Amino acid sequence: MTPEDRGTLAREVDALRSGERDLTALGDAMHAAVRRLYPLCRSITGDGVRATLDVLAESLDLERHGVPSGTQAFDWTVPDEWNVRDAYVADRTGRRVVDFRRHNLHLVSYSAPVRATMTLDELRPHLHTLPDRPDWIPYRTTYYSRDWGFCLADAQLRAMDEGPYDVVVDTTLAPGELTYGELVLPGESTDEVLVSAHVCHPSLANDNLAGIAVATEVARTLAGLDRRRFTYRFLFAPGTIGSITWLSRNADVLPRIRHGLVLTGLGGPGSLVYKRTRRGMRDVDRAAAHVVTRRGGEVRDYSPYGYDERQYNAVGFDLPVGRLSRTPHGEYPEYHTSADDPSFVAPAELAEAHLAVLEVLDVLEDDACVTNLSPFGEPQLGKRGLYPATGGKQATDAVMAMLWVLAYSDGATSLLDVASVAGADFADLRRAAASLESAGLLAREQGLPRAPAGTLTAD
Amino acid sequence: MTPEDRGTLAREVDALRSGERDLTALGDAMHAAVRRLYPLCRSITGDGVRATLDVLAESLDLERHGVPSGTQAFDWTVPDEWNVRDAYVADRTGRRVVDFRRHNLHLVSYSAPVRATMTLDELRPHLHTLPDRPDWIPYRTTYYSRDWGFCLADAQLRAMDEGPYDVVVDTTLAPGELTYGELVLPGESTDEVLVSAHVCHPSLANDNLAGIAVATEVARTLAGLDRRRFTYRFLFAPGTIGSITWLSRNADVLPRIRHGLVLTGLGGPGSLVYKRTRRGMRDVDRAAAHVVTRRGGEVRDYSPYGYDERQYNAVGFDLPVGRLSRTPHGEYPEYHTSADDPSFVAPAELAEAHLAVLEVLDVLEDDACVTNLSPFGEPQLGKRGLYPATGGKQATDAVMAMLWVLAYSDGATSLLDVASVAGADFADLRRAAASLESAGLLAREQGLPRAPAGTLTAD
Amino acid sequence: MTPEDRGTLAREVDALRSGERDLTALGDAMHAAVRRLYPLCRSITGDGVRATLDVLAESLDLERHGVPSGTQAFDWTVPDEWNVRDAYVADRTGRRVVDFRRHNLHLVSYSAPVRATMTLDELRPHLHTLPDRPDWIPYRTTYYSRDWGFCLADAQLRAMDEGPYDVVVDTTLAPGELTYGELVLPGESTDEVLVSAHVCHPSLANDNLAGIAVATEVARTLAGLDRRRFTYRFLFAPGTIGSITWLSRNADVLPRIRHGLVLTGLGGPGSLVYKRTRRGMRDVDRAAAHVVTRRGGEVRDYSPYGYDERQYNAVGFDLPVGRLSRTPHGEYPEYHTSADDPSFVAPAELAEAHLAVLEVLDVLEDDACVTNLSPFGEPQLGKRGLYPATGGKQATDAVMAMLWVLAYSDGATSLLDVASVAGADFADLRRAAASLESAGLLAREQGLPRAPAGTLTAD
Repeated sequence: MTPEDRGTLAREVDALRSGERDLTALGDAMHAAVRRLYPLCRSITGDGVRATLDVLAESLDLERHGVPSGTQAFDWTVPDEWNVRDAYVADRTGRRVVDFRRHNLHLVSYSAPVRATMTLDELRPHLHTLPDRPDWIPYRTTYYSRDWGFCLADAQLRAMDEGPYDVVVDTTLAPGELTYGELVLPGESTDEVLVSAHVCHPSLANDNLAGIAVATEVARTLAGLDRRRFTYRFLFAPGTIGSITWLSRNADVLPRIRHGLVLTGLGGPGSLVYKRTRRGMRDVDRAAAHVVTRRGGEVRDYSPYGYDERQYNAVGFDLPVGRLSRTPHGEYPEYHTSADDPSFVAPAELAEAHLAVLEVLDVLEDDACVTNLSPFGEPQLGKRGLYPATGGKQATDAVMAMLWVLAYSDGATSLLDVASVAGADFADLRRAAASLESAGLLAREQGLPRAPAGTLTAD
Repeated sequence: MTPEDRGTLAREVDALRSGERDLTALGDAMHAAVRRLYPLCRSITGDGVRATLDVLAESLDLERHGVPSGTQAFDWTVPDEWNVRDAYVADRTGRRVVDFRRHNLHLVSYSAPVRATMTLDELRPHLHTLPDRPDWIPYRTTYYSRDWGFCLADAQLRAMDEGPYDVVVDTTLAPGELTYGELVLPGESTDEVLVSAHVCHPSLANDNLAGIAVATEVARTLAGLDRRRFTYRFLFAPGTIGSITWLSRNADVLPRIRHGLVLTGLGGPGSLVYKRTRRGMRDVDRAAAHVVTRRGGEVRDYSPYGYDERQYNAVGFDLPVGRLSRTPHGEYPEYHTSADDPSFVAPAELAEAHLAVLEVLDVLEDDACVTNLSPFGEPQLGKRGLYPATGGKQATDAVMAMLWVLAYSDGATSLLDVASVAGADFADLRRAAASLESAGLLAREQGLPRAPAGTLTAD
Repeated sequence: MTPEDRGTLAREVDALRSGERDLTALGDAMHAAVRRLYPLCRSITGDGVRATLDVLAESLDLERHGVPSGTQAFDWTVPDEWNVRDAYVADRTGRRVVDFRRHNLHLVSYSAPVRATMTLDELRPHLHTLPDRPDWIPYRTTYYSRDWGFCLADAQLRAMDEGPYDVVVDTTLAPGELTYGELVLPGESTDEVLVSAHVCHPSLANDNLAGIAVATEVARTLAGLDRRRFTYRFLFAPGTIGSITWLSRNADVLPRIRHGLVLTGLGGPGSLVYKRTRRGMRDVDRAAAHVVTRRGGEVRDYSPYGYDERQYNAVGFDLPVGRLSRTPHGEYPEYHTSADDPSFVAPAELAEAHLAVLEVLDVLEDDACVTNLSPFGEPQLGKRGLYPATGGKQATDAVMAMLWVLAYSDGATSLLDVASVAGADFADLRRAAASLESAGLLAREQGLPRAPAGTLTAD
């Protein structure tokens, strides 16, 4: 790498891929973050979100925003803040047979306060289990309909007698705020890349502590660079109401967002899955499809069901935001149950996801139209020392990468275009282009010419 | 359905699909029509065509046109009118061994008059059989070359001795007229949909009494509606010379034809087969491909061999007319033989074909660009009562249909476009759009913006 | 065929396809040419190239060009001329254990002069064998790095003792010239078709005496025609440096090149393989894909590795030059070894390749937009005698070919376009179009309207 490459995303990607930088250690660090955040009781508002943002703020220069309950956000209204002091179902002896203190998932999120004595029959409509998975506690919410309930293992339920039971839901539902964290890393351009992870799920590891951990590590990496082409904006917000609230307060930012990624479910099993933007052929779609496909992952078309990509891609915003995950929500049995705990998330998967995100961003940062400066026939690589001294497949690949770049560098074709035609790896072509540039055979434009970003059609 | 939907094609389709309207009874009625029309001896001119149109006129306000023999129609000339009084081959005892009165197919259509006594050897060049299907009578014509002949079962032929035979073809070939029937159902727009069925085949049930029966039933349905977006034109004309003659007399109509369908072979075996227009991507192609594919049918590219779609699609007219059939001509052994009788046609197949035609027309009538009126993030469906009260797959599908419509309703995307992206059913999305419209979340344009129709380049 | 077709490429193709012209005899003649040229020691310069061009000049009006050593050609320089008087490795008894006189391949091409006595150990770095193919002599060159060496069968090497050996490389490497041959056959248009074959390989039959033999036979055929639409330019030049040198001296010609083919490896095993131009959808790509696909061959995308197509397609020239071969270089074990001798090349394969090249050129010469002069419905073919008198599949195919042409002849669609839609053979449609033209039903434009050719962006 050349000195001017130091401190760039390209250098970081190459260092992680070559083993110069320890990817395994990063995976372990991200897993430690997952374990640390796991016990906090997050919801779409409340102390758990703030405690989570406090942890992230230890390593990121995060700005915290509070939006008062009752604030209108397009079609939605910021709800009352919800907090939990205690919640349990106790038998006649005072033994807590279901106890929020043992597991956050035991309490239906946004349960309204209750103090009552009830028989099992009376209680049953408020109890949620998974008969097919008798040892797992399900995850349930009642955000927009005032109700209460407990979730428990079906085995627990079957062990309960007729009662009566003391039922206590000691929660508050009162005007407060919706909280989200935001980090902006300025780049050479005011054009922005948005990276978004939801922070509203309680003790669930893959959905979405994994996304939070990867987003945090990517943010740390980008913050440490000497140069960034784009401005990066990281958003840690509650799902749906959080992103819609953020969108409603940032009309000035939206036109600058050129690319975006929702990060979620990146630590569970399965290969990477990229979900396209609604339009399906934005720059981020091509970049992510390249990276994910080469990593053996899967690319799927947009559908209006999922995470916050639904809000960013809504026709009124039309932001080019795709989604990166592993096996998506609802397609693994542990989804939204107590089985989605830290042991369900693997350090190696977090590490690969981190590198894949950086590779996608590398394509976005470093893709450029290239111009062959010796375009009349093939230039003599040998007399310029561009034939590797050693032979073998690696050397042949390096020469072929140069030949592909030279063959298509007509000033209107980008390195990603060449990678697509050649079936080659973007980073390999980026390095080949750098060699050719050093030898005076190639000129590289700073970035692709771009169409104007979609503009917000109302404020 | 809302009151304003009453009397629309959409309502009719929904009623037939839900079972509210009895589709089976319609199939039986169409089969009865096939049986009634079967004995008439149709050809490209003559009494049989007029008798057929008389029957259709009992339930349709059909206008009958007669075009004199000798009239020029582009490269063609209306031929002399052909009628049959009698025709037979009788043995020495006077027994008719081949007798037109027993089956219309026994006489080659357009046979010239003959009275002669001939040995079998002399007769043989005028006899047509199907050795591979010894019990079936083939169907043969000699429209444009003066000749005569008989068709018979090969078993009949093999039973004939050396003769001599009395051969009588008591036909007239004399100036008269070419007859066709036409029905115009005015709509809100003067833009037209053309539905065409050929009426020149004698006792052949699938080819094309089935097409005639379905076209008639579709016409009856459309005539009974309170509102039609398009003007509908039904043409019952002899094949080739009939459609070319009609085209030559309607230069003013052609520019208004926005969509068209040739209906044929709709009662025989096999799934639906849609044959695209010559250009292949006209609106009717997309509409019919949607319907036929979802019904498990097949979509084929245009070829210049077939029925009257060849004339409508000729480069000088370039009309957007596709063709709907089941297993096409020449691909089933009964084709153009006496085995294509009413028992070859099934009421249930006629019924499904009728509904499929209505579904295609429903797409053409009701497809529209849609605009999301709450485009900034996903609107809250719950607070508007748009979440079905009951759960289950049907409810989920209804919500997903709304989400798909909302996600793509940017004012330039039509419901059929959304159906294509979503892999969803047009009628389901149409109903979802209606719900969203009622809730004030969606605006629906009256029809797609359209390119000007192809204009006739000569008169 | 009509009299005005005599002496056209169309007539030649039809005559070879029908058997009227003896294709087998042509294959034998081409194979004889391969055998005759095989013993000559070609390289990128020198007497062998000149001797080869002398043989070609016996039947072609070839112009020979010599470009002095040291001449700059874009990024390259014409090297010193290389010639061989003698070269051998002899043992102590004077017996030549490796002898250039026995096989041209024994001497590494461009070996510098040497006279030395060496042990086997000292000699070994200069000896090249194929241990996996112990009886074959490999082919090696050292054009741009001053060195020397011998190639031999691995069995030969294993039979050698420790020596010492007398090593003699009696070559000259001195200022001279690079030689290439060029033939221009003027046509009705100054637009050109370039056909290029490399002439720098010593005793290797498939690579590329086969290409030379086919190019020669194609040139002879074209020279014998009465009419040629295009001007044809045949280039017989050394690989890489030869084509680059030619390109550097013909800046005025390049804008006129509308189509081009590199011919190579056409006599070995395997079906035809067409390699697209860099842009991939030039006219020659469509024409060659049509011909090669119908012959059961394979069409591949461009890659920047191969023969002189790399130079013609370089971004500075951007010439529409594809490549026709059979199994390409490096994909058969005999490639670049003594096993690529005349027995590796089959007369029938040369013959088919010859016809395939003519068929491609026929598409380029004879493709034209067609206009239906009777476009209002299907014209009556019968009254014009266009229904073949005899029946059967051939007659049906001929009628269908006419129907396809009539159906799509809207003045903006070419015969190749129709062939593509119809899945039909271009030459069959060409003949159908000629029949329709004779009957006054079709007008044929002289060639397709064309976009301006790529212009040379520097001189």
